[in-house]
Amino acid sequence: MSYRIITISRQFGSGGRTIGKKLADELGIKCYDREIIDQIAEESGFDKKYISEKSEYVPNGIFGTMMNRWSYSGPTNEERIWQIQSNYIKELADKESCVIVGRCADYLLGDRDDVLKVFVHADNKYRAERIVKMYGESDIDPEKRLKDKDKHRAAYYQIYTDMTFGDALNYHVCLDSGAVGEDNCVEILKNIFN
Amino acid sequence: MSYRIITISRQFGSGGRTIGKKLADELGIKCYDREIIDQIAEESGFDKKYISEKSEYVPNGIFGTMMNRWSYSGPTNEERIWQIQSNYIKELADKESCVIVGRCADYLLGDRDDVLKVFVHADNKYRAERIVKMYGESDIDPEKRLKDKDKHRAAYYQIYTDMTFGDALNYHVCLDSGAVGEDNCVEILKNIFN
Repeated sequence: MSYRIITISRQFGSGGRTIGKKLADELGIKCYDREIIDQIAEESGFDKKYISEKSEYVPNGIFGTMMNRWSYSGPTNEERIWQIQSNYIKELADKESCVIVGRCADYLLGDRDDVLKVFVHADNKYRAERIVKMYGESDIDPEKRLKDKDKHRAAYYQIYTDMTFGDALNYHVCLDSGAVGEDNCVEILKNIFN
Repeated sequence: MSYRIITISRQFGSGGRTIGKKLADELGIKCYDREIIDQIAEESGFDKKYISEKSEYVPNGIFGTMMNRWSYSGPTNEERIWQIQSNYIKELADKESCVIVGRCADYLLGDRDDVLKVFVHADNKYRAERIVKMYGESDIDPEKRLKDKDKHRAAYYQIYTDMTFGDALNYHVCLDSGAVGEDNCVEILKNIFN
């Protein structure tokens, strides 16, 4: 199998982003993650923090959507962000071999056969310890932070892709980074890619 | 991480059993698959074909179960098979390092920390071609055979484990054998296990 692109979906705190960066380094290609937000900011004029929130959390719910449709005055901010993000990711894939972290890239590039689709996850204990080590303590209990992030990420993915986040059938490789080890994950993906 | 046991859940036609056998050979340990049915047959007196069907298909539905409870006269055949299977798999894991294919072994050994839990799947095209190559043509269309097997295997797993078959979070490693390649799957699992 000949792959050009690797998409990495990941549970919050699982180390998926770190794995993506290391993998890209070892393969000598670029890893796109926050760069996608920079691009959306440039194209849309929205603030980066605002984009980051909107591309993680679900829209204002059905009521909000209905109200927007009632007095339709163009796409919502969420729709504009989604559209710019979609176009940018598709252009990236056409342009260069790269790793793309998150942002439903697995779904957006689903019709290409040169995309290796990866999901990285880990159990709550591993992720709780990791987020405290990476992002420091917070007033909110780590388990609660994970639960909140998991819920929103799954809902966002479900709404935009109509697929279930974490369903093994949507990916070519799913790895528990706690059980397999982060460096091992990098090694496995590198070998499949090459 | 130090593993002694590998459980392989697999979609019908994905090559999960073949991967399990090759992996066990390369690791110099035993692979248990049909041997579990032999053991159940010996202990229970049931016919092997009957056991094979009962340990793949769900019980007679809620109505059947209720009727059995109404005039309770001991465990049903399905319950006896499940019990013997559970005990045997747990004893195996205590006794020796091995690969166990299917039979909800990932769930049955879920409280052990020396078990590497694997799920093997592949897309319908790959599996349809593979089952025709492995098991020959049949009057029933390969896609229909896959659909039927997938449905029953998922229902059996759901009923006995209360978990979703193919949910990446239930496994340490999920591999699309068509995308990754069977020999590559063996190599990846061997390296994680060692």
